[in-house]
Amino acid sequence: MIEEAIEALKRGDFIFIFDGEGREEETDIVIASQFITPEKIRFMRREGGGLICTTLPKNYADKIGLPYLHEIFQRSGYPIFKYLTPKVRYDTMPSFSITINHRDNFTGIPDKDRAKTIKEFAEFLNKIEKIEKPMKEFGEEFISPGHVHLLISSGLEKRRGHTELSTAIVSMAGLIPSATIVEILAKDGNSMSKEDAMKFADEQGIIFLEGKDILDAWYKWSE
Amino acid sequence: MIEEAIEALKRGDFIFIFDGEGREEETDIVIASQFITPEKIRFMRREGGGLICTTLPKNYADKIGLPYLHEIFQRSGYPIFKYLTPKVRYDTMPSFSITINHRDNFTGIPDKDRAKTIKEFAEFLNKIEKIEKPMKEFGEEFISPGHVHLLISSGLEKRRGHTELSTAIVSMAGLIPSATIVEILAKDGNSMSKEDAMKFADEQGIIFLEGKDILDAWYKWSE
Repeated sequence: MIEEAIEALKRGDFIFIFDGEGREEETDIVIASQFITPEKIRFMRREGGGLICTTLPKNYADKIGLPYLHEIFQRSGYPIFKYLTPKVRYDTMPSFSITINHRDNFTGIPDKDRAKTIKEFAEFLNKIEKIEKPMKEFGEEFISPGHVHLLISSGLEKRRGHTELSTAIVSMAGLIPSATIVEILAKDGNSMSKEDAMKFADEQGIIFLEGKDILDAWYKWSE
Repeated sequence: MIEEAIEALKRGDFIFIFDGEGREEETDIVIASQFITPEKIRFMRREGGGLICTTLPKNYADKIGLPYLHEIFQRSGYPIFKYLTPKVRYDTMPSFSITINHRDNFTGIPDKDRAKTIKEFAEFLNKIEKIEKPMKEFGEEFISPGHVHLLISSGLEKRRGHTELSTAIVSMAGLIPSATIVEILAKDGNSMSKEDAMKFADEQGIIFLEGKDILDAWYKWSE
């Protein structure tokens, strides 16, 4: 199953990832960021419905100088952040960083714009080793606030959310280590149940993985 | 037209607002935040497709101690914000503030969760005059980062975006001065054209307004 998922990602296809019982218990639509297109964004917003977010590994974020959003809030010194603690129920900390738009975009929100932002972001990560001043060049290509949420993966050794699971599997696939993900919401106003998400995946011919499948493979891969 | 739009808002119905030629040239689905429901969120994400955002007037933001996101970035001192300038093409500054979730939510993203966050946020604004320590109580009710984007309206005298236009019309309607809005995206990956948005509004029996309609009414109202 993991091999099939890796092949799907390499082809630029979606996979579904259910994180795990006792966590969010949510299924996300996942694609390798380098293969995003306006049509893929449209599928994600229509069939997913949550926030479309793009991941990057912590060591890449460090190269760019990109902090977590809660760190920015705390460092800003605005007194409101003494009260708006970022504690989430299912994990220690959210993985949110800033939102970005590519500078060539106009508003940043149409499918074409979000696809452009995400694709260029993946390209940026791909060439990061060759960039002399990553922070400066990042600011030349992107603005913030924007319309694509960046999520920083702390790595599966530290956190087991969709951010880390999706980043791990695109990395195992040998692709640019960035996934673009969105939560699947149901018609009844809740997250889609695991059973319904599995049925939906089956109808669409999309591989359905659970967090533990990725964890098992990742332990072997990172040995 | 403006009277009909005000009546629609008072009933808890959607209206559409096209900002204006030479600006974003986007149509947003707009509802008074106090009337949001999970079903309304579902309509907004399926028929709109952009980011679901909730507005508040600047003087309310000041009472809570809620800054603009770009101010937080600048004050944080992280060097990346020297480069990631928030300049947008169609206006001076974005109106984004922080993202929030209501504390009773689990993940914050399902329709029920976003509706809860937005409805409680409107209620919070409604009772703000009676709250002794708005900042502290805000932090007791909400967390950040979350899944609902707050937008601070600078007022129509300063800015004429969807944030200000929608906040102005709900205020003119005598409702809690917060609108919840989302951009309407088209199938082709662009923002929906004004003509198509007018046709869509007509099919749905939704009032379509332009920014200038609201501006005209607002000038008279604020005299």
